[in-house]
This record gives sequence, structure tokens and C-alpha cells, in this order.
Amino acid sequence: MTDMPFRLRERLRVRWAETDLQGIVFNGHYLTYFDVAITEYWRAIGKPYPAAFVGTGVDLFAVKSTVEYLAPARYDELVEVGCRAARLGRTSIAFELAIWRDGERITRGEVVYACADPVARCAIPIPLPLRDAIEAFERG
Amino acid sequence: MTDMPFRLRERLRVRWAETDLQGIVFNGHYLTYFDVAITEYWRAIGKPYPAAFVGTGVDLFAVKSTVEYLAPARYDELVEVGCRAARLGRTSIAFELAIWRDGERITRGEVVYACADPVARCAIPIPLPLRDAIEAFERG
Amino acid sequence: MTDMPFRLRERLRVRWAETDLQGIVFNGHYLTYFDVAITEYWRAIGKPYPAAFVGTGVDLFAVKSTVEYLAPARYDELVEVGCRAARLGRTSIAFELAIWRDGERITRGEVVYACADPVARCAIPIPLPLRDAIEAFERG
Amino acid sequence: MTDMPFRLRERLRVRWAETDLQGIVFNGHYLTYFDVAITEYWRAIGKPYPAAFVGTGVDLFAVKSTVEYLAPARYDELVEVGCRAARLGRTSIAFELAIWRDGERITRGEVVYACADPVARCAIPIPLPLRDAIEAFERG
Repeated sequence: MTDMPFRLRERLRVRWAETDLQGIVFNGHYLTYFDVAITEYWRAIGKPYPAAFVGTGVDLFAVKSTVEYLAPARYDELVEVGCRAARLGRTSIAFELAIWRDGERITRGEVVYACADPVARCAIPIPLPLRDAIEAFERG
Repeated sequence: MTDMPFRLRERLRVRWAETDLQGIVFNGHYLTYFDVAITEYWRAIGKPYPAAFVGTGVDLFAVKSTVEYLAPARYDELVEVGCRAARLGRTSIAFELAIWRDGERITRGEVVYACADPVARCAIPIPLPLRDAIEAFERG
Repeated sequence: MTDMPFRLRERLRVRWAETDLQGIVFNGHYLTYFDVAITEYWRAIGKPYPAAFVGTGVDLFAVKSTVEYLAPARYDELVEVGCRAARLGRTSIAFELAIWRDGERITRGEVVYACADPVARCAIPIPLPLRDAIEAFERG
Repeated sequence: MTDMPFRLRERLRVRWAETDLQGIVFNGHYLTYFDVAITEYWRAIGKPYPAAFVGTGVDLFAVKSTVEYLAPARYDELVEVGCRAARLGRTSIAFELAIWRDGERITRGEVVYACADPVARCAIPIPLPLRDAIEAFERG
């Protein structure tokens, strides 16, 4: 994962309920933070989820998540979550994510989604309008 | 709320992710514990949720929750959550809940559900088979 | 609970992870929303938690929560959470809370905290500077 | 990651609050399930966390998590979470995790912890008694 610029950055504040008794954010909650940024990513490219997906015969399912904890986030801190589509496969989309606090990157990770039939759950190629929207956004 | 016996008691262990930096369970998570017990209640009376509700034209929606925190639960503690149907109205069911640790009641509360049409969300009388199942269970 | 104005209003967006398979926010998560607003309340009155409390010999513990669910919040909705100190006892603070969506109040509730010694957990009168800060803020 | 046997297996039931509006467990909650199994792992090897760590000058911090979602877990399902120490470095412990439902592996993953000074957060070699306890347990 690189230090390339992220066009989508979403700010959030660490909630009390997200900290644990080590005084830091529980490791699983970073995936919630990633998810918040991915929600904003879909909106930013003009394909809000799930509205832009319903009835298209395509849904997205997480297939793999990775989180690297470089430094802990603490209660009440303001952090920024960056999200960019790092790789587009035929049927999959890999998002690269990062979290910064005061300019220091404290977390990085990846969430890979597969396009699939919402009922049969078999893989389906990324619909062309979705691919175009992602590529247009990332080109800037 | 009384100290009447609870026929349904569900044991659970406090998870790390449920504690906060005061070292105790975050106040909102007790509603998750209550919900775990209510799930077991439906199963115990032979009306597992949602299976026993789907297609009946009736769903349940929480209308009010109350939690009293008598003493805090801490990481890794084993607690028991009791649940009983304390009041049956025409369209509503009030569950009384309590949490014990080593025989000491540390939490008590109430969750009230309304029977409603799942689409229109208007109140619907509790279906007779459901009412019968609850009353039979509580009679013991 | 009244419809009195709330000086503290905090906006947030419903996260995917907060919805359940009824498609609405799980009933326990409203207490997280309340908590987010209470955090902002402490900041707004100049007593950020926990910084303004550490070393003062006083901490706050939730003693009772109530949530009334008037209408469900759904994924990706923007809501506003209002918080005001509704009653100050000798040792307790009762916050009234409400959640609006597009001007419609969809949730209301109350969270009562007790001032207590952080170790012994015995009740302690609300420190005068805290009481003054709350009263000054609520007077507007 | 292999299909080697896991000596530690912890059963849990999917909670309502853990499902999302796709009707499946939210991707971040699998890290909570992993954490529940890791808690039981420490207990199983005779080093309950945090009791066996407090005052030793060593704490554990998650440095990397990976989750692969092979099939979704759904509300009310009983699953089994397996945990084993797959690699012991000088200062790090890599847990391999897997989740089964009715004998089908639906999730697999890894959580890597670093031993560190709880204050300075600098890496510290795994204490010998801890290393011995892990190796003894894994030998069976």
C-alpha cells in the first residue's frame, strides 16, 4: 500500500463506546471506520449504496479485510479516514484505506468486495457504469 | 419491577469489545444483553424470532427501553440475564429483564415491544397463538 | 419530557454497522447516539470529559437510561441529537435527549448520571464549578 | 493458513445486533468473534488476560488483523470459532482463526499481537513463561 493521495477523506470523532479498557479503540471498530468512508466513497462517485445497486441484479459482499494498527486512536480524537479504489478486477473491487490523526497515519488497511448476484451469490462482472464511475473519480 | 423468578435465564460472558475505558461495560451494551435474552425467550416459548413471525403479517418493534445500572459489569465476568413477559397489553408486550453476577442483581430494565404490521407499521393485536404461548410459558 | 429547545444539537449519519436485519437502527445503538451528544455537551459547557474530571476525585456513572422509539432511523440518514441537562439533583444529573430527522422527532430519552468517587463509587455532590457551568449553559 | 486442528474452539450464537440490513453479520464483528476466542485461548493456556499480564511490564497490542469471508453468518446461527497460535516471533504472536457453521468453514483470519511495554509501547520479547505456556498448549 502506498502513500498516494486519497481523494475521499471522511472526518470522524472517536466515540466513547468504541474504546476499550486499554483506553484505545477496539481493533474491530476500525472496520466500522473503514465502512463509514466506503459509504462516502459510493456517494462521492454518484453511486450511493444501496440505492444505486437495488434492482440492478448486483450486490457487493466483503471478501477480505486487512487492518494494520500503526498507532492507537483514543477517545474523542478527531481522525480522517481516506478511501480509494486501489484495484479493479473483473468481479472485485479492492479499497485501500488509511486513518490519520494530526497528519500521522495511524492505521492502514484494505477491504475487498466482490460483485455478486444478491440471491445466488455467484460472482458477476463489475457493471460498466460502476467501473466507469470509479475510474472517473480516481482520475480526479 | 419485582424480584419474581425468571423462568428464562441466559448466561453470557462480558466481551472485551463491550468494555469502555472506565473498565466497565458501556451503558448501551446492556440492551444487547437484554436482546440476547429476548431471543432465547422466543425460542423457549416455541416462537423463534423471526421464523415464527415471517408471513404472519405481524412484526415486533421496540417502543421503549429502560435500563437501571445498579453495579457495573466488567470484562470477562459471567453474568446471567433473566427475561420474563411482565405485561401483555392488547398490542404490546413488556419484558422485564435483570442481570445477575454471582447472585447479585447488577442491572434491571424493561423493553416494550409493539405488535405491528411490518409494512404499514400500524398497531395490531397480539396474535392469539403468541399470547397463548407466552401465558403458558409464564404459568410454568 | 417537553419540547423545550435544546441548545446542544449534534448531527450524525446512521452507519451501516448500526442497522439490523429489520433495516433499522438496533434499539441499543440509540444510547451510543445519546452518548455522542453528551460528549459534545461536556465540551460545550467547557468541561470536556474526561479531562475536566480527572484528578478532581469525582467521576460520572450512568444510573438509568430510557429510550422511547417513536419512529425508526435508517441507514445513511442524517439525524440530529439534542441534549440538555433537564434536572440537577444534589448528586445526580439527568440529561434529556431527543433525535430528529428532517424536523420530526423520532426518538426521545433520558440518561441519568450520578457523581461518585471513582474508587469507592459512593455518591458525591455535584462539584460547584460543574453545576455552575451547566446552569450557565442552560440559561443561554 | 492450513486446515490444521484447533485445540481451542469456542461456540457462540450470532446476535441480532451483529447483523446488518443485508441480513448477515457485519464484516467488522468477526473481529469481535475472533477476540472472544482469543480470550478463551489465554484462559485455556493458564494465562488469563489481563490478570496474568498486569504488573509483568508486558502488554499485548494488536498490530495486524486479516479476515477472509468465505460465507456469511446469519442471525441466530450457532458457530464455532477456532484459535491457535500459528507463529511465535521474538516479540510477536500470530493467531490463526477460523469460524465454522455445521462443519463448514465460513471465515478464516489472523490476528497478530506485539508484546510491548504498556507505557513506552516499545517491543519486548515474549516472556518465557508465556512462550512456554503457548508451546505446551499447542503441542497438546
